[in-house]
Amino acid sequence: MKIALDVMGGDNAPQATVEGAILASKETNAELILVGDENQILDEMSKFKSRIDLTKLNLEIIHTTEVITMHDHPAKAVRNKKDSSLSVCAKLVAQGEAAGFVSMGNSGAVMAAALFYLKRLDGVLRPTIITRFPSLNGSVCIADMGANVDCKPENLLQFAIMTNIFCRKVLGMKDPRVGLVSIGEEPTKGNELSLAAYQLLAKADLNFIGNIEGYDIPSGKADIVVCDGFVGNVILKFGEGLSDMILKLIYRSFKKHPISWASIPFLWPTLNDLRKKVDYSEFGGVPLLGVDGVCIIGHGKSNAKAVKNAIIAAINATKYDVAKAISEALGKNGKADE
Amino acid sequence: MKIALDVMGGDNAPQATVEGAILASKETNAELILVGDENQILDEMSKFKSRIDLTKLNLEIIHTTEVITMHDHPAKAVRNKKDSSLSVCAKLVAQGEAAGFVSMGNSGAVMAAALFYLKRLDGVLRPTIITRFPSLNGSVCIADMGANVDCKPENLLQFAIMTNIFCRKVLGMKDPRVGLVSIGEEPTKGNELSLAAYQLLAKADLNFIGNIEGYDIPSGKADIVVCDGFVGNVILKFGEGLSDMILKLIYRSFKKHPISWASIPFLWPTLNDLRKKVDYSEFGGVPLLGVDGVCIIGHGKSNAKAVKNAIIAAINATKYDVAKAISEALGKNGKADE
Repeated sequence: MKIALDVMGGDNAPQATVEGAILASKETNAELILVGDENQILDEMSKFKSRIDLTKLNLEIIHTTEVITMHDHPAKAVRNKKDSSLSVCAKLVAQGEAAGFVSMGNSGAVMAAALFYLKRLDGVLRPTIITRFPSLNGSVCIADMGANVDCKPENLLQFAIMTNIFCRKVLGMKDPRVGLVSIGEEPTKGNELSLAAYQLLAKADLNFIGNIEGYDIPSGKADIVVCDGFVGNVILKFGEGLSDMILKLIYRSFKKHPISWASIPFLWPTLNDLRKKVDYSEFGGVPLLGVDGVCIIGHGKSNAKAVKNAIIAAINATKYDVAKAISEALGKNGKADE
Repeated sequence: MKIALDVMGGDNAPQATVEGAILASKETNAELILVGDENQILDEMSKFKSRIDLTKLNLEIIHTTEVITMHDHPAKAVRNKKDSSLSVCAKLVAQGEAAGFVSMGNSGAVMAAALFYLKRLDGVLRPTIITRFPSLNGSVCIADMGANVDCKPENLLQFAIMTNIFCRKVLGMKDPRVGLVSIGEEPTKGNELSLAAYQLLAKADLNFIGNIEGYDIPSGKADIVVCDGFVGNVILKFGEGLSDMILKLIYRSFKKHPISWASIPFLWPTLNDLRKKVDYSEFGGVPLLGVDGVCIIGHGKSNAKAVKNAIIAAINATKYDVAKAISEALGKNGKADE
């Protein structure tokens, strides 16, 4: 079982991607295919020669000549840059030479490449990118986080079903509670989309707990939170911005009050707890669900640790054959709403 | 210039509303009409007799027999409960007996009462409830915060124009920067609604700075943030939930690490700064813009201080005649997009 890594994707590529691959390979002994500019990859690898015996790791390199950047138009770039590191990763999975691929690059392009090469699973209207967000009692999965900005009620139903399978199989949850993002708890509160989606979710074979309001996303009331990709993306980024704001305000205030400033050394254990809790690199990457193969999308700012964890997430996803389960749930033989 | 207060609205009514009215009257000497159950109002007032000479305050009571609760259907309740404290408040403004009204009650019902009695201003497609959210350099106004869950691009344009007038006239801003909530900075990023709204906003007579992502709402990149009421409401409540989560995590971690716990006394100045920054009661209430009269909606959880500040917000809004300015900007004699 090989995992292909888009070495050229992400703000810190190829340094962080190569280092992450080495760490993942050391930790799991998995076979990895590093896809990207061979010279750059070898350069990065050479930095580790003194510390690690790379010959013992299962690392293979496939040289590519093109790179899809953050500024590229996703679909056009995938169509035109056939020898990009991202396209070749997706192709390797489509051809069965890799069991899954990981990219920290342009997430729109990753989605486009997965759709173009891996194809949608039978019965899936639209694949979804889910994300994990810290909550009071652990973390909550939000679907969709930006892949689908304009949705129909049926899309939200499918996002819930696919994420439910992921949470059960990969995260080992027993009976994840599914909440629908809305502006009030009552089934009559919401916009056109959420009102209609409520009816579909209530009838589906899910542990549906009804509408949840913005307040309850971080409180951990639900394990899975469903919304369209516009709302999901705004929430996710707003959460990053707000955490940032609070930390900056604390810092400013500390500087203003010498007595508080002086106590910072005593706060390290607490600050460390918080940092771990909100550190996206712990999760590594988020899955694209609904395509025929494993695809993990990492944060553009991923460091080596995040890359390592994204690769491990891909390995886990291949173990549990999420695609087959989704196909059974949504495919011709098992309509979502029956 | 009298302000009518819905004494029966809000989780802490009538205690917090009556106390808030007394505080506001003492501070501003404004004439207030307390609308609600007379016995309950007199009961609450009697608690202050030993401390404050209430005969010196300009407080008038209008007795009402009905109350609109949080569980009432907004429009139906306003139609059926003609002698509710909320309906009577709105009627007083419509009849010119009060210059504006304040309610901490069911915000949907407040909006319905304002529409029913005060009427929409000429040219206004839909009134908007704006809210103020703390940002790094002060606060940001978000429109709409839940009054309009399904919007057309023209609605978002009008929300921006109305909020712009409020920010200039009432908050004294020079040239507020208007941002449109989206999932990327480029004009080509967004959902159907935001893409079309972008084009309208770019042509309008506003200091439009383009799309802003969730991350930039708390960073203070824009002074006015425009989105539909579904997104606005989810953001607002998610922000409350996230701040709450972070504080709870800090508290838990403090308890785990004795050395951090011991330093809490030194942190008071900083915790106090933070508390003030995120304390909604400082803003008191938010305006409903686009109706013919002043209407301030307070948080359901308002304490006396928040009620006092909401009344002061109403007094300020009546001073600057926001309705007239909106009417001129959007009415027959001044189309929004010309």
